[in-house]
This record gives sequence, structure tokens and C-alpha cells, in this order.
Amino acid sequence: MRMEQDSLGEMELPDNILYGIQSARAKDNFALNYKSTNLHLIYAIVKVKKAAALTYEKLGIGKKEIYPYIIRACDEILSGIWKEQFPIDALQGGAGTSANMNVNEVIANIALQLMGKNTGEYEFIHPLEDVNRGQSTNDIYPSALRIASIELLRNLSESCAKLQQSLQERENEFEDIKKLGRTELMDAIPITLGNEFGAYAQAISRDRWRLYKVEERLRQINLGGTAVGNASNADKKYRFLVIEKLRELTDMGLAAAEYPMDITQNNDVFVEVSGLLKALAVNLMKISNDLRLMNSGPHGGFGEIRLAPVQMGSTIMPGKVNPVIPEMVMQTAIKVIANDCAITTAAAHGEFELNAFLPLIAEALLESLSILERAVTLLRLKCVETLQPDKERCLELLSQSYAFATAYTSKLGYDTVSRIIKENSGNVNAIKSALDNYRVD
Amino acid sequence: MRMEQDSLGEMELPDNILYGIQSARAKDNFALNYKSTNLHLIYAIVKVKKAAALTYEKLGIGKKEIYPYIIRACDEILSGIWKEQFPIDALQGGAGTSANMNVNEVIANIALQLMGKNTGEYEFIHPLEDVNRGQSTNDIYPSALRIASIELLRNLSESCAKLQQSLQERENEFEDIKKLGRTELMDAIPITLGNEFGAYAQAISRDRWRLYKVEERLRQINLGGTAVGNASNADKKYRFLVIEKLRELTDMGLAAAEYPMDITQNNDVFVEVSGLLKALAVNLMKISNDLRLMNSGPHGGFGEIRLAPVQMGSTIMPGKVNPVIPEMVMQTAIKVIANDCAITTAAAHGEFELNAFLPLIAEALLESLSILERAVTLLRLKCVETLQPDKERCLELLSQSYAFATAYTSKLGYDTVSRIIKENSGNVNAIKSALDNYRVD
Amino acid sequence: MRMEQDSLGEMELPDNILYGIQSARAKDNFALNYKSTNLHLIYAIVKVKKAAALTYEKLGIGKKEIYPYIIRACDEILSGIWKEQFPIDALQGGAGTSANMNVNEVIANIALQLMGKNTGEYEFIHPLEDVNRGQSTNDIYPSALRIASIELLRNLSESCAKLQQSLQERENEFEDIKKLGRTELMDAIPITLGNEFGAYAQAISRDRWRLYKVEERLRQINLGGTAVGNASNADKKYRFLVIEKLRELTDMGLAAAEYPMDITQNNDVFVEVSGLLKALAVNLMKISNDLRLMNSGPHGGFGEIRLAPVQMGSTIMPGKVNPVIPEMVMQTAIKVIANDCAITTAAAHGEFELNAFLPLIAEALLESLSILERAVTLLRLKCVETLQPDKERCLELLSQSYAFATAYTSKLGYDTVSRIIKENSGNVNAIKSALDNYRVD
Amino acid sequence: MRMEQDSLGEMELPDNILYGIQSARAKDNFALNYKSTNLHLIYAIVKVKKAAALTYEKLGIGKKEIYPYIIRACDEILSGIWKEQFPIDALQGGAGTSANMNVNEVIANIALQLMGKNTGEYEFIHPLEDVNRGQSTNDIYPSALRIASIELLRNLSESCAKLQQSLQERENEFEDIKKLGRTELMDAIPITLGNEFGAYAQAISRDRWRLYKVEERLRQINLGGTAVGNASNADKKYRFLVIEKLRELTDMGLAAAEYPMDITQNNDVFVEVSGLLKALAVNLMKISNDLRLMNSGPHGGFGEIRLAPVQMGSTIMPGKVNPVIPEMVMQTAIKVIANDCAITTAAAHGEFELNAFLPLIAEALLESLSILERAVTLLRLKCVETLQPDKERCLELLSQSYAFATAYTSKLGYDTVSRIIKENSGNVNAIKSALDNYRVD
Repeated sequence: MRMEQDSLGEMELPDNILYGIQSARAKDNFALNYKSTNLHLIYAIVKVKKAAALTYEKLGIGKKEIYPYIIRACDEILSGIWKEQFPIDALQGGAGTSANMNVNEVIANIALQLMGKNTGEYEFIHPLEDVNRGQSTNDIYPSALRIASIELLRNLSESCAKLQQSLQERENEFEDIKKLGRTELMDAIPITLGNEFGAYAQAISRDRWRLYKVEERLRQINLGGTAVGNASNADKKYRFLVIEKLRELTDMGLAAAEYPMDITQNNDVFVEVSGLLKALAVNLMKISNDLRLMNSGPHGGFGEIRLAPVQMGSTIMPGKVNPVIPEMVMQTAIKVIANDCAITTAAAHGEFELNAFLPLIAEALLESLSILERAVTLLRLKCVETLQPDKERCLELLSQSYAFATAYTSKLGYDTVSRIIKENSGNVNAIKSALDNYRVD
Repeated sequence: MRMEQDSLGEMELPDNILYGIQSARAKDNFALNYKSTNLHLIYAIVKVKKAAALTYEKLGIGKKEIYPYIIRACDEILSGIWKEQFPIDALQGGAGTSANMNVNEVIANIALQLMGKNTGEYEFIHPLEDVNRGQSTNDIYPSALRIASIELLRNLSESCAKLQQSLQERENEFEDIKKLGRTELMDAIPITLGNEFGAYAQAISRDRWRLYKVEERLRQINLGGTAVGNASNADKKYRFLVIEKLRELTDMGLAAAEYPMDITQNNDVFVEVSGLLKALAVNLMKISNDLRLMNSGPHGGFGEIRLAPVQMGSTIMPGKVNPVIPEMVMQTAIKVIANDCAITTAAAHGEFELNAFLPLIAEALLESLSILERAVTLLRLKCVETLQPDKERCLELLSQSYAFATAYTSKLGYDTVSRIIKENSGNVNAIKSALDNYRVD
Repeated sequence: MRMEQDSLGEMELPDNILYGIQSARAKDNFALNYKSTNLHLIYAIVKVKKAAALTYEKLGIGKKEIYPYIIRACDEILSGIWKEQFPIDALQGGAGTSANMNVNEVIANIALQLMGKNTGEYEFIHPLEDVNRGQSTNDIYPSALRIASIELLRNLSESCAKLQQSLQERENEFEDIKKLGRTELMDAIPITLGNEFGAYAQAISRDRWRLYKVEERLRQINLGGTAVGNASNADKKYRFLVIEKLRELTDMGLAAAEYPMDITQNNDVFVEVSGLLKALAVNLMKISNDLRLMNSGPHGGFGEIRLAPVQMGSTIMPGKVNPVIPEMVMQTAIKVIANDCAITTAAAHGEFELNAFLPLIAEALLESLSILERAVTLLRLKCVETLQPDKERCLELLSQSYAFATAYTSKLGYDTVSRIIKENSGNVNAIKSALDNYRVD
Repeated sequence: MRMEQDSLGEMELPDNILYGIQSARAKDNFALNYKSTNLHLIYAIVKVKKAAALTYEKLGIGKKEIYPYIIRACDEILSGIWKEQFPIDALQGGAGTSANMNVNEVIANIALQLMGKNTGEYEFIHPLEDVNRGQSTNDIYPSALRIASIELLRNLSESCAKLQQSLQERENEFEDIKKLGRTELMDAIPITLGNEFGAYAQAISRDRWRLYKVEERLRQINLGGTAVGNASNADKKYRFLVIEKLRELTDMGLAAAEYPMDITQNNDVFVEVSGLLKALAVNLMKISNDLRLMNSGPHGGFGEIRLAPVQMGSTIMPGKVNPVIPEMVMQTAIKVIANDCAITTAAAHGEFELNAFLPLIAEALLESLSILERAVTLLRLKCVETLQPDKERCLELLSQSYAFATAYTSKLGYDTVSRIIKENSGNVNAIKSALDNYRVD
């Protein structure tokens, strides 16, 4: 056990705990048992810290000898071995200060150990004075959030690209399977099964493009703006160099925001990104629902396609197979829509130089990005690539309907065709024959 | 033309305009071109004003001779002939002060005319000093909102009662029509068409009960609490009597809130009511969607029922009839869900002794109540009461499926039935025969 | 009175009613008393009809002699004189068929009158056969919605540009007014009042850019795709020419979608646009809320600025002036957020070749665009351009706080400054003096 | 390792894994990496299974000798030692079948071990045939969800009761502290600090009452209704007895639904409950925001109260303390509002006899209940009970304002008071003196 203290008093901490008193207080203060802070975000903060340490080292700011240890500590964390050291709830108050301090404390203690010191011997490496130095949560945290978002955005965009490709392959494969087109769930006019997948592919390609383009908005970061974005307390050389280092570390085209006070307080960009995720969610809902409808039956529904069974469907009805993958995708989409609601509400609640609710925005946005990527991938692998058409059923439903009738309107006029359909109500063959034999005088 | 003035200056108003300078400013300030303030709300404010005038008259407060005119003015407004005199946008700032002043000014000017004076001769009847007297928007407006809500709630509840009854009639009528039950859109086990409508009737009966019960929460009003609910400036006798008068005028069991400061600032009750409207909306979505699905086709879909045609369905596809009533109901339901979002956000934004966003809450809540009442009624009249079952189609889909198989599991076990279905994949007759002939040793 | 008929039967209509039986049925079917269809949308449909008539005329399709009358009828409607002829509720079922038929019928009847015929003499000009011809609601309506959206989007974008400029002017004007910066509502570090407006200007400039860029997504239209987007029944020359004509009429860079089936069924683009409107709404919430906070008081609040009074604030508290403009703007923003909820839900509910809930999407999107434009303009004119700083109060609050302390951390270290603040708790002068006299050894 | 098989094929499973092939498939199918299924729900399913086993045992259904082991297995799970055995993602497709099978498989394997058998030796105790028997996910899962909800609802209601009490204690304690009342953030009229807490207490008491009352709606369960609620395959004696057993096990007044098909397919009750949670969330937002505002400063804001510091506030601004607890509470409230959005959307998407999206409803509802309970408790302990009033500051702001002026209107009239305030603009003492000396003739 070791004893730590801050302005509120003392606290005993087990030696194997690498976070310190401030993290411990936050863990206790925010004991919602919801979820701990998203690790993508934690690691992005660590990357910022590493870039800062590299910068201090180069510029000769602070205690020269500690930086190699700090940098190695960052690398260790990024390797994934210390993830239990970040237990603070994701819905923490304080605009991310606790997440920042958690990273500062863990880095300090790992670095101390690497140096051969004991955890808590902050006279050698101090979480605030040495690791954090003049950095402010208010520039560190939003910058890290943007980095984490770009990372996940790229994964998602790639998954969309693959889904689009799979959809197009099915489009080509099914281009000769004639089927009934439906509007408002009612029999309309003939199309092909390929058309269905073609339209889905287009929608997803639009998503992919949007996600690709929006990255540039996230690349503007307020790093170096410190507490309120006006760079109070920040060394000019540091500001310039740290972003350069970070650009190298992340392989992202990050740039210093021209007016960092704006980015420090305004979060409309996250609302924008989340809005695009919602557009993708809406497309996934549409596609999944169509797949469920086309798959419905097998005998008492549309039955135009057969989704591959991926598990048993019922504990009471033998042989039942359910469209569980589209169902999961739809639930994911609904969650993303709900997260957008949270992000919007939180973003609308900023005051003056900061938005205190950024941790909620971060949590919801990164969650949406992650689960969408998984849902898109699972939809592709376990559903789109494996479903089978029922060509006969497609044709059967098409021929039962009078979807062919519209084609006669250009010759016979709407009213005539309409009347013929009405006169032969329900009887498809009679309608066809009456239309063919109708003579326009 | 007449000239009016307030602390901001003078303004010329045409003589036939019965509102005054304050309404005119508000009309201009809130020129969103959205919608003018809901008339149900305006009329409820007028009722409060009438109750107040009756009370002043009885208690001998103010100028005795003006009250008969004020009361007649209120009655005229309530008769519906002056509705163009309330043009201020529904999304007005000011927590309803402008709606209140609009009513004060129109009452004053009508009363002046009834008295034989000219509009604007406020030395005889003054909108603020005489009509409004010590009343505060902050007790008038929320009280009126509760009255208007109860009124519309009762209409809605009655419409739900009728819908429930219609659904139950169809339940009885269809109790012998066997059909396929479906879970997750897949063939499940046999039920009846009556069952479908029975389940809908139950859901709507629950809505009806909820809407009936919640009225009591709305009956607590803060009238007499004035600006912040602590009854500053309010005569005790007035407070007691005005609610009594209002109870008589409205035929509602209104009661003075025990702690009016609470009701003046907190709007969770409107969130609660809106939440129940949302529950009704969800049930309407479910029912409407089922009706659309069962009606789908007519040849290439489920086709188990036929909705009565209420209009032509397409400008290009002759003979097409669309389920336009359920579609309208679903859109109404979505609007109600969206209004709930607005109400919640607005209610969460209150500060200290008041919520400045009550006009938005009022607008959204009254709109939801009104359009739901219409949608429920139209759904009943133009859809539920007129739809026709397709008994043969119901039976056809049922017999095509192996929905009968589950019944065998209690005798043969889940695995055996499952295996038999798999071995005879797709062939319903073969499955039936194999199940019947299976011998459990 | 005249008699009209359709496949459901006959109906008598007054002669001065220019819509016909199908509109009349729809008016009755969708009697929600919500709002009639947005006129921007109606007029955009009329523009499409005009482009179609010009095209038919040029290509020699149909009865040559009727087009001059049809075109003049369109122009009359666009002049605004016939707006009461479009009474069908905005939340209509049928995916817009009724709005399309309403336009067809009104054009036909106006054209008949211009021709010297009576309304209802459809043997000369028939709403369906002649005005609508082979057009489908499913390409007309979404195309019109895009045109109406672009129109309103341009207005909104321009309003944002003006607001941005006003904010920047205030930024410059206030650049020397020192004030307290606040994070999480707590005293933080010194900034200027100019900074506040500078950050707002940046946020609005981002909105403006987004709204400008998204137009290109709306320019892809499915006109000529007919019922499901595969151009069934559509003449190729017509498809090409009609978009050209429409481009001229609207002065917009409209283009035929490459895969019209996609656009006919998928509505993610409207979700995208609405998402951007939501981002603007969030910025307006932030700015309005800050203005309300800085204006709070006048004596018992922050009081750093004074919003210009635009109307009296209270019917009971004399002299009270409320921030009614920011309150209205916030309510508008909340409405836009709620509309986004409606748009998203509706867009997620499409099935197969069409989304039946497009009328709700149209209504909500066009409403958001309109009220945002008004709110942005009113915020600029009645608030941003007229508010006054209270320089002394800004300075007073700044000097009362120890916002200066952070600047000492780079020299003295965080812990030392922290300790000194704690030791001199609350006493700003003592802290300042202790910090100045602290000697780092 | 052991080998298991189902109709899709074989799979090898490590011996220490107590779930079986169906869970393993589901784990893989729903690999969203979101969260595993809520343990409150899992345990409630286990309770239903235990009640079922007790019932089978008593009625002599199935293999008599296995029930003691099954019951012990249930108890072991309920003790909390096997929680890693339920890894399936909360957003699973399949309407809960996987959660049900997960429980069936884990119970079977624990029971097998208790019997001295090996995991996977299902010939002795079979997850489906013996543990699940004729039970359907569609009655098990919704019943369990209701039980878990009631459990958490009771906790939450109790936390609200305690919060209400704390608020009332502060109300009493602060009843003599005079302060400025504010409407629309502007100085209004005098109140006490006690009034603020009194109004909060009232709001929370309403929440408590609502949460208490809604339990009765959750007590109706469809257990025994099996797949679609019509009790197909269910023994009548079993249906009666199992609910009795469950009532004993849970100590809840559970009752068989009168029309189980309704409850099997309709989820409006969860929308209703979530709507009430949202009302609580709105109240928490209001209270937390007020606390943040009253605490703002300490020198440059309202500063009427001091929240107890619970952690350091900034990594760059020494001495800064932030209102982190109210910030966390507000984020929790926003999350609950977002969850309501998810619940509503999911509930609106049911089709026919079931809603496939119940797992999302369950996840979101139970999460809201849990985090609200924690937030309410933390708000009480770390904020309400420990905050301190700043009596002098309250009085200072009150005396700086002319909140006293309204009291003069009943004597002098609104216009006169208004004029006097205007004439002495800004000067509080001058206004007071002018009002006192004004002579009404």
C-alpha cells in the first residue's frame, strides 16, 4: 500500500494500482456502474501525451531524464497490457479531467517503475507537474476524441466499402431473376432481384463517401489552446511541434485549428459526424427490413430469398430459423439513432468556453462508430454473402400479380386500363387478355 | 387607425385590429411563420380570464362596471368569431407573456366596443391594469395549458374507447378465421384472425386507461401563485374563489396545487402525459403496420385482409390501391414521438423559478393530443370498421406452412420434431405424415 | 356545382373549387387538421409539371393545343393566387400521390378556364391523362422535394452568412473588453468579450459551409424514373429533356441520378441534410443560451451584456425585460431537433421500392429549413446587432475572480499555485500578492 | 474439450465453458462488442427457470430425479459465481432466444456437474428437452424482463424517496435564507433558498409516486402463453402453478395476464415505464442545472451555494473546483432520454405476434433503471447533503435588484411602477425611495 494526497486529503492505494488518488476519487464519484471510459479514447489521450513528451524532450522543456521513461510508459499502455488501470466511468463529470488525470497518473507510475522507483514517488515523476505539465484537459481531450473518431471512422468506412462490394456482387448475380416490385407494400411493377441489391449498394456507397469526406472536419484540433482555447500558458514552439509529432504518431493529417477557442467550446462537428452515422443507420434499417420481408415465411410469407441459418430459431418451434442477423443490425441502427439523440442533447448544453458534457458525446460517438463497424461486417459476412434467392418464388409472385398492367397505359390510357382491371377484378389472366385485345379506336 | 404606446414607444394600429401594441410587437418579434398559438390554449386562457373577472366582480375588486363587458367579451371569443385576433407565433419567447397579453388586449378592446367606446380607449378598460390586474402569465398560462390538455385528453380517450370497441367487434367477427401466427415475420403456429384484433383491442384499452388516469395529475393548478408560485401579490380570497369559478366554467375537478412554486417551474407532468401519448403512438404504429402487412399484395403479398379503398392509389399504376389510412396514422404517430422529443428537451431546460420554453411544450403537447384524436378516429372509421378478411387466403397460408409441428413436441420431443422437419425439408405434407407416424418407443 | 367521378363513385363539387374528386377524397381521408401541405413543395411540383408540359410540347407528345394553357396555369399558381386550392393535410398517406393529384387537378381546371371551358370538363384537359400523363408521383414528388429543399437551403445559407458577419463585427467591436472566461460555469481565465463572439462566428461559418456543400447531394433527381425508378413507361427523350427544362426553370444544377431506383426508395440524403440542420440548431442553442446567461440579471446575474428590449417582459413584474429572442431561437432549435427525429424515423421505415412516409419527411424538412432561416435572421436583427456590452461589469467580475492564477503555474508549478489559493481561500487580493511574492528556490 | 452439435453441425467447446453450442453460435453471430446481456435479466430468467423446475417437480412432469440438481444450479447462478458464462451481446437478434438458451445450457451443465456427470452429457439433462421443456422464449423472456424491471424500479423508487427527504431537510434548513427568485434567468421577486429545495423535493416526490404506481402494470406476465401467447403446448396446471412459485421466489405480486397474446406482442408498457424514467430525468436535469448555476463562480457567477468539492477540477487551473456530480447526473439523464428513444423506436417495430427487438428494449430499460438509481444516490450523497449556502451572497444579489418592486403594483398600478423603474433606471435605491414616496391621489 502507498499513501497519496491531494488538496482534499489523503488516501491509501494498493501498490499494484497504477492510477493515483485523483483517479481513485473519480472512480468513486462517478460510480454509475455504466461502463468504463472507452479505451479508444484512452489510447488516443496516451498518444497525445507521447507526442507531448517527445516535444518537451526535443525543446528541452522540463526534466530531460524522465522522457524516455514516459515515452516507454505510453508505448506499454498502447500495447494493451494496462487496460484495467482505466476504470473511471464513461459518464464522468468534469469534461474529461478525470480521464486525463487517469492517463497522467498511470503514465507516471509506469514510468516510475521503469525508472526503478516505486509507484507514488511523484517527486521523481509527477503526474501533474511532469506528465501533464501545462496541458489542459480542454485541449488534450477533444483532440484525443478527434483522433479516436478518425481511427474508428476509417474502419467503418472500409467495412462499408466491403459491404457495398458484396451487394454489387449479389446485384450482378441476381440481375436476371425477375420479381415483383412493390410500393407501399403493394404489388407495383416488374423489376429484378438484382435491382434490389443494386439500390442497396448505391445507398451504402453514399454512406462510404460521406464518412470519407467528413474526416477532414475532424482533423482540425485545438491542441495547444489549453483551458479555453486562447493558448494561455502555452509555449508557441510547443504548440507547433506537438501537432507535428502527433501527425507522425497517428498517420493522420491533423492540423491546428485556426480559432481554437471555437473548437474548445463548440461540438457541432460531432453532431455532424453522428448525423452521418444516423444516415448509415437508416440505410441499414431499410436494407435489413427488406431482407427480413423478402425472407419471411418460409411458406406463409414473401419467401423470395432464404437467409442462411446461423443458429436455431426457437426453443419451442422446431425447425424455425429466424433472421437474427438483420434483427441485430436493426437494433444496432436504433442504438446509433439513440446515441445521436444523446450527442445532440449534450452538444446543445455547452456554456461559455467549454461543454461539460463532452464525455457523454465521446462515449456515444465512439460506441456508435464501433458497433456500426461490427454490424456492417456481420451483415455482410453472415447475411448478404450467404443468402440464397428463391427464383421460382420470385417468379410465382410476379405472375400472380397484374404488375404488367402499367405498361399498357401509354397505349390505352390510365382510365381504360384502370377500368379493365376493375372489371376483371382479381383475375390476372382475364386482365391480361382483356388488355391485349383492347382496341384503341 | 389608433395610436398605442408602451415603454418602448408608440405604434399605429388599424381600428379593426383588436389586439394592441404588445401583441403587435410580439407578432413582429416572433415572425417565424411557423403557426399561430394553438386556439385551444387561447380559449383556455380566456376561460381563466372569465373566471378571474367573475371573481373580481364578486369580491368587489377593481372597477365594478367593467366586468359585465369583460365577461361578454370572453364569451364572444369563446364562440369562435375572433380567432384571427390571435396571430402570435406558437414558438414565442417569453414563457407565454405574449399569449397572455394578446388575450388581455383583445378582451379589453371587445369589452370597450361593447361598452360603446373605441378600441384603444384604455382609460376605461386597461388590458393590464383591469383585465390582467395582478395576474401573472406564470400562473395563468400553465393553468390554461392544463385545462386545454384535459379537454383534448378527454376527446382522445373517448376516441380510443370507440376504437377499442371496433377492434373487439372485429375480434368477435373473425374468431373462427384460422390463420398463421408469425414471430419475427416467420411462420410460427396457428392462431385466428380474431386473435390479431383481440390483441390490438387490449393494447388500446390500456392506452385508454392510462389517458383516463393521468387527468388527475393535470388537475393540480398553480392559479393564484403569480410570478413564481409563492402567491406574491395575490389576494387570498381571490385565489380561493377563482379556482372555484374555473371549476364551474370548465366542468373539471381542478384543484389548487399544494406547492405552487413546484408546478410553476417544473414540467415533468407534461413529459409524463406526452410519454403516454407516445405509448399510444407505438401501439398505433404496431397495429397500422400489421394492417399494412396483412393487406399487402393483393397478389404478391400476405393478402390476408383487404382494406377498403378510400381513394385511388397511383397516378401511373392503374387499379393500385394503397393502405393510405394506416400510412397516415403511422406518420401521425411518428410526429407524436417527435413532439415528445421536443417536449422533453424543452422541459429539461427550465431554470430556477420558471421554464421559458413552456410555449413549445404547449404547442407540441396540444398538437399531439389533437392529431392523435383525429388519427384514432380516422383509423377506426376508414380502416378497422371497413376492412374485409380474406378467409381463404388466411387458410391457404396456414396450410402451406408447418405451423402445426410445434404441437407434436410435447409428445415427440423438440429434437425429434426438429429432425423430421429437416429430413423432409420444405415438404409440408411429408412432415405432417412423418410426425403422425412417428413412434415413440 | 359540378359532378366528378372516379372508380370509387361520384362526388359533387362547387364550381369555384379548382381541385377535383381525388383531392376532395384525400382532404377527407387525411382530415387530421394538422397543416396543409407545404406550399414550397406544391410550387416545386408545379415547376416540375411546367417543365414536363414544355417537354411534351417540344417533343410533340399528347395534345399539342393544351400545353399553352397548362403552362399558363402553372404560372398562375406560382404567382401565389391559388394557394387555398391545396388543402390536403401534410401528413397524408400515399407517398405524395394526393399532393401530385391535387396539383394535376388544379392545373387542369385553371387551364380549362383559360381555354374558355368549365371546370370539370376533363374531356378537353384531363388531370391524369393529359397533365400527369405517364408521370409517377414517385419521381415527381421526390424531385420536387429536392427542388424545394435547395431553394430554402440557399435562403438559410445566406441568412447564416449574414449572421456570421454580424457576429464578426461584434467580435471586432468588443475585442478590447476584458472579461472572465468560464469553463463548466466556473471562473477560469481571462478572455475578451470579442472572443465570445469570435467563437460563435466560427461555428456559424462552419454551418454555412456545410449547408452550401450539401446542396450537391440534393441535385441528383430521379425524374423520369417513374413508379420504382427503372423508368418503366418513360420515353427516353422525355427523360433527358425534362430535366434540362427544369434546370432552366429553377436555376439549379439538377442532374439525372445514375441509379434512380436508389433515390426512389432511399431517403438517407434527407436524413443527412436534417442532420446538418441539427448541427446548426445545436450552435444556435449554444449561442442563445450564452447570450441569456451573459444578459442575466440585470442586477442579480452575470449582467455582462444587455440585450435590446423588444417588448415588455411581464404582466406582473414592472420593468422586467426578458431575453425573448434567444428563447424563441432555442425553441426553434428544439423543434428542428424534434423534426430530425421524425425524419429519421420515417426514413428508416421504407420498404422495397418506396418509402410511404415521404410526406412526413417533406413536411418536417421544409419546416425546419423555413423556421431556421427566420430564427437566424431574427437573432441577428433583434439580438446580435442590437445588444450592448457592459464593460464595467465584465471587468468587475474578472477582477473579483482569481482567473489570473493559472498564468503563474508555468513559473511556480501547479501544486504551489494550488496551495497558495487554498491558503488564501476566497481572498483574491491576498492570492495575487502571495503569488507575486512567491520565490522559487 | 467436448464436442456438441445442433442442426447446423458440430462444435468443440472447452470443458470449463458451461454454455453450449447454441450460446457459442450466438456469441459469434452477435459479435458487436457492445456489452453482454444485462445480468439482472439473466438472473430473472434463472428465477423463472427455477420456478418452472419446482413446478415440474411438484406436478411430476419430466424426469423427477433431475430437478434437485437444476434447482441447485439455479441457486448457484443466482449467487453470482457464474457470471462470465453469459457472454452473448445484449443487442442479440432472435427476440431473446439466445439469452434463454444460454441460461438453459448453463443450468444443464452446472446441474450435470452437481450430478457427477460431465458437461455436455445432455442425455442426462438436456438444455432444451429437460431444462427448457415446452417453454418458449416468448413467454420466459418478457416475464423475466418484467421481474428484473420491478426489482430495479423498487431500488430506484427507494433512492428517490431518500433524495426527496434530503431535499426537504435542506428546504427546512434554508427556509430563512432570503434570495432572489428568477424567471427566464432575470431578476424577479424575493423567495428563500428553502423554496428552491422545496420545489425540487415536490418534483422528486411526484417521480417517486409515479414509479411506485407503475409497478402494477409490470406485474401482468404472459408466462405460460408460450410462442404467441395462446398457450399452445402449455399444460394448464403448469401455467397456474409456475406463476405461484415465481410469486414466492420473487416476492412480487405477479399475475397471469388475461390476454397473454397482447403482452407477448405489445410493448407499450415498457414505453410507459421509460416515459416515466424520462420524466425523472427531466427533473434531475432541472435540479442539477440549477445547482450548477447557483454554484457558478465562485467569484464571477451567481455563487449562492457552494457544492462540496469531491475532486480537483482542472489539470491547468489550480484551485478550480467543478460541479462534477451535477454534470454526471445530467449526462445520466441525457442517456436515459436517449434510451427512451431506443425503446420507443424498438417498440414501434413489432410485427404480428412478437417484437423481435425486445432485447434492445430490455437492455435500454434496465440500463436506465440502474444508472438512474446510482445517479440519484450520488446526487444525494455527494451534492445535496453536503452543499453549503452562501447566505450573504444570496442577500447581496437580492438587495442589488429591484425584486421588491412588484409588491407595489397592487397599490400603485403596473404602469406607475413601471414608469418609476424606468425613470430611475438601474438605481435600486432611487427606485425604492420613489415607490415609497409615490402618492396615489
